[in-house]
Amino acid sequence: MENIVDIILDAEQIAILTHTSADGDALGSSFGLAFAMEYLGKNVSVFLEEPIPKSLDFLPGQQFVSEYKGNKFELCICLDTSDMTRLGKRADIYSCAQKTITIDHHTTNTMQADGLWIDQRASATGEMVYNLIKALNIEVTRDIAINLYTAIVTDTGGFRYSNTTPESHIITADLLSKDVPFAEIIKRVFDTVSYSKLLLLRKALQNLTMHFNGKVAVSYLLYDDIKSVDAQTDDFEGLVNVGRNLEGVEVSLFLREETKHIFKGSLRANEYVDVAQLASIFSGGGHKRAAGFSSEDNLQNTIDKVLAEIEKVL
Amino acid sequence: MENIVDIILDAEQIAILTHTSADGDALGSSFGLAFAMEYLGKNVSVFLEEPIPKSLDFLPGQQFVSEYKGNKFELCICLDTSDMTRLGKRADIYSCAQKTITIDHHTTNTMQADGLWIDQRASATGEMVYNLIKALNIEVTRDIAINLYTAIVTDTGGFRYSNTTPESHIITADLLSKDVPFAEIIKRVFDTVSYSKLLLLRKALQNLTMHFNGKVAVSYLLYDDIKSVDAQTDDFEGLVNVGRNLEGVEVSLFLREETKHIFKGSLRANEYVDVAQLASIFSGGGHKRAAGFSSEDNLQNTIDKVLAEIEKVL
Repeated sequence: MENIVDIILDAEQIAILTHTSADGDALGSSFGLAFAMEYLGKNVSVFLEEPIPKSLDFLPGQQFVSEYKGNKFELCICLDTSDMTRLGKRADIYSCAQKTITIDHHTTNTMQADGLWIDQRASATGEMVYNLIKALNIEVTRDIAINLYTAIVTDTGGFRYSNTTPESHIITADLLSKDVPFAEIIKRVFDTVSYSKLLLLRKALQNLTMHFNGKVAVSYLLYDDIKSVDAQTDDFEGLVNVGRNLEGVEVSLFLREETKHIFKGSLRANEYVDVAQLASIFSGGGHKRAAGFSSEDNLQNTIDKVLAEIEKVL
Repeated sequence: MENIVDIILDAEQIAILTHTSADGDALGSSFGLAFAMEYLGKNVSVFLEEPIPKSLDFLPGQQFVSEYKGNKFELCICLDTSDMTRLGKRADIYSCAQKTITIDHHTTNTMQADGLWIDQRASATGEMVYNLIKALNIEVTRDIAINLYTAIVTDTGGFRYSNTTPESHIITADLLSKDVPFAEIIKRVFDTVSYSKLLLLRKALQNLTMHFNGKVAVSYLLYDDIKSVDAQTDDFEGLVNVGRNLEGVEVSLFLREETKHIFKGSLRANEYVDVAQLASIFSGGGHKRAAGFSSEDNLQNTIDKVLAEIEKVL
């Protein structure tokens, strides 16, 4: 990290970039670092591909967001971004900078940089930015703390995902001591549901059926249902878990008619069924407890075939 | 706390009690402390009012649970219990013990004890047991860590409730370093839904309507719907939040026909509406953003009256 500290201290004009479809860790890391750079007297700009999503528009630091006018930067710092394609139209800002730094926690990172710091043990890039700010002897202000708390809490699913570490909690303890309104942040990033998502959930619950003594839950959404509610891609997220979270369920199957007559199937298991193996029978794949496949057969045939395979391994 | 350490070190036969309807903090604190007492060579028994709920039956330490045979104890330690009525049929075990200790984080605690330790800043009694175990110089084993993690995570709603403190995270960091399977614990205590609860959610979603440009969500469950799914009391928990969590909603009203023709109303607000004030119009009460009332009027009249009052303050 010393290398990175030196590069930062040497630069005056700094651009901060993060990946397209910026999430809580991407934006929280970027704004948190921008405040720290400002404290050091740097001229700092954050460049984003898209507008800030509504669920994250409470983040302080949006005054650092600039429109790119083609100028070259002394230093470009790229956060939470595993490869150049994830910089979208902003790749040139990175390529043309005199010096570059990449800070990321993705194992698959393929970026080139003068200062490259990859730490796959970090639950969030926000954790790494926290450690960098400490190394730079900069005080963690409330604005910085709100950003880094949001980064960590979103990337760990609220300290629930297996990437959460003792270090995540130690850093969070320090951030909370800066009077972070964490209950409000949680509400904004986790508890707010769009109406289209609610309508899809309602339909998915109507379509839910149980099989094999309550060990298997099946649900689906048809193309027309999805069209009628003007659904966004992330509205489907988690619908397969409605069945998986039911008491007594081992396997949950969720089918979504992605385009007319083509179903995207999601399979989840709780304890022992290898759903990657099941998905492979239908030319799909994935992990032992979370897998997927596609089917061009009709809904009932698809369900029947998958249930027949599940029955063999229950 | 020294007083409490001395009382513990002096006793050989120890009974541990917690409140009726024991939850994650009650059971986690009890079993965590029981392991520590065993480490000190004490003869320790935990007495419970009811069987351990399914969602918590993974907790280690259930071998300490005993049936009460009328004997008197040298020391009875009561955890997370604000008054004697919450000891149910086990009140005598506490009353008849030679020495008593009470450890609790409820501000309303009215217990008498030789060693009384109330700390309302603690997010969970499990935090206090952690500090006691440290004061006793006992190693936090994996079994203890699983119990205390469960105590803290359940009483803070997964570090989401406003009672969460930096201390909660610091203690959790230490507990996680003991190889606690936290992702599995989270799944058991938060993500498992009973089938009856799912059926109520499905019905509540079917009954959901939006009013005043999406600012108000209304839903209800009728007596016969509730009866037909053999619902438990806690199956209703959170149904009012389905409406409250919808993007753009300020007030959520949820009505449940508790007995024939009597509706129990729950009101929640997000930002500015004072629902305690609204509830008081219907002889109810509560907090500014969470309140309740009863209505013996029919469903449609009740909804119309409440909506008319909400409209005035939107």
